[in-house]
Amino acid sequence: MTTQASPKIRLFVPQAFAADAALVLSDNQSHYLAQVMRQKSGDSVAVFNGADGVWRAEISAITKRNVTVIVQEKIMPQRSCPDLWLAFAPIKQYTERMIEKAVELGASHLLAVITQRAVVRSVNVEKLSAHAVEAAEQCERHDVPSFSTHKDIGSLLATWPEDRMLLHADETGGGKNLAALLPELKHKKLGVLIGPEGGFSDDERKIIAAHKNACGFGMGPRILRADTAAFSALSCIQCYAGDWDAPPRFEGTQK
Amino acid sequence: MTTQASPKIRLFVPQAFAADAALVLSDNQSHYLAQVMRQKSGDSVAVFNGADGVWRAEISAITKRNVTVIVQEKIMPQRSCPDLWLAFAPIKQYTERMIEKAVELGASHLLAVITQRAVVRSVNVEKLSAHAVEAAEQCERHDVPSFSTHKDIGSLLATWPEDRMLLHADETGGGKNLAALLPELKHKKLGVLIGPEGGFSDDERKIIAAHKNACGFGMGPRILRADTAAFSALSCIQCYAGDWDAPPRFEGTQK
Repeated sequence: MTTQASPKIRLFVPQAFAADAALVLSDNQSHYLAQVMRQKSGDSVAVFNGADGVWRAEISAITKRNVTVIVQEKIMPQRSCPDLWLAFAPIKQYTERMIEKAVELGASHLLAVITQRAVVRSVNVEKLSAHAVEAAEQCERHDVPSFSTHKDIGSLLATWPEDRMLLHADETGGGKNLAALLPELKHKKLGVLIGPEGGFSDDERKIIAAHKNACGFGMGPRILRADTAAFSALSCIQCYAGDWDAPPRFEGTQK
Repeated sequence: MTTQASPKIRLFVPQAFAADAALVLSDNQSHYLAQVMRQKSGDSVAVFNGADGVWRAEISAITKRNVTVIVQEKIMPQRSCPDLWLAFAPIKQYTERMIEKAVELGASHLLAVITQRAVVRSVNVEKLSAHAVEAAEQCERHDVPSFSTHKDIGSLLATWPEDRMLLHADETGGGKNLAALLPELKHKKLGVLIGPEGGFSDDERKIIAAHKNACGFGMGPRILRADTAAFSALSCIQCYAGDWDAPPRFEGTQK
């Protein structure tokens, strides 16, 4: 591995990497590199696939349709995010922004669930995944969270893993204090469940509270919007039970 | 004080409250009540002024121009936010949303500062204040943060109070771990400084680090956007050194 600065442009390329391997980039990435960023043959980019670290790659061919890069050398070992799921109800206007922030805040798996009071009743996973990839490229993650969709709270919880804690924002005031709770949760498998704009229905609350892995937490005296609650919970978890104490990344500035 | 549920509509009315006092609402609030929410004479609203708690008030007159309410009884004692400032560089597209979230997360004073690398070079305080009022009404705060503007980092820090800590997000990786830092800061006067999209310039970094109240903190291995950094820092501070351990609010659901 080199100590040279990583190329500024980072691309998620879900293919196997090895020195001298040729990677044909997707239409979107090719367009971005050639048309938007005006890159030329011989220019370097950083590529990651979620498993093999970050590699330097050199643009070897630009055709009308696609850009091909040649993988050269590993410039960073793989760094994965803590095992932290975010289960969320899609919210009007702000779902994409919530995904973008969840990626920055290191969520490893994103579970979209349609709740009874949700205003948004469907999820476009393809579109959300594209947003997640873009956010991962920009925030210098080495992986991209996976997605799953669930038709209601019952089906989400029926498949909730035995060994994963179910942390849910309890806006009724009965939840535990995160500050007291989090230090005990370090290195555990965690999942956070955040409701939609109108909160959970009474039925949903009962189903959630009855789950054997459930643990309700409070977030203070003000009402947080659904997206704020998601960011806040992920932030506190990463700070106190996640990877904010990991060594700093090698380069880059705040965006 | 009554134990009845608070009216759903909450309005910030910066006037003195006393039983039977008549309050003439602003043009915007009058329009909102009469035209948007279709309220009638005799309907109840909750009013707060940032000092005297939350009061029930009854609509007594609706004219073409204004709505007048009569203050009736205090329904909640004043609950103020912790003494936590947020100094921020306005950011393209997202300043209003950053203000909205800072209000939800209980910032008590908002300081807009124009930094060297900021893309946005001006601040419309009147517009931001209106957003802050709306956010405070919706999140059940009993106060509205104040605003100030500063032409550069030097002038911001020249007037920074002697007794207030200057917590700044240090994206170079040299900052302290918030989890280790925050428990010591409970009940202290705090201010968080967050840079713009492009981060602080080297000159600005030096000025900030040289301030005697400065304390840099890190937020993990991923790059956070400026607005994410602001929400995340405020969330961790409220959770660990702020009022998230306060008694829950009396009513309301997540929005």
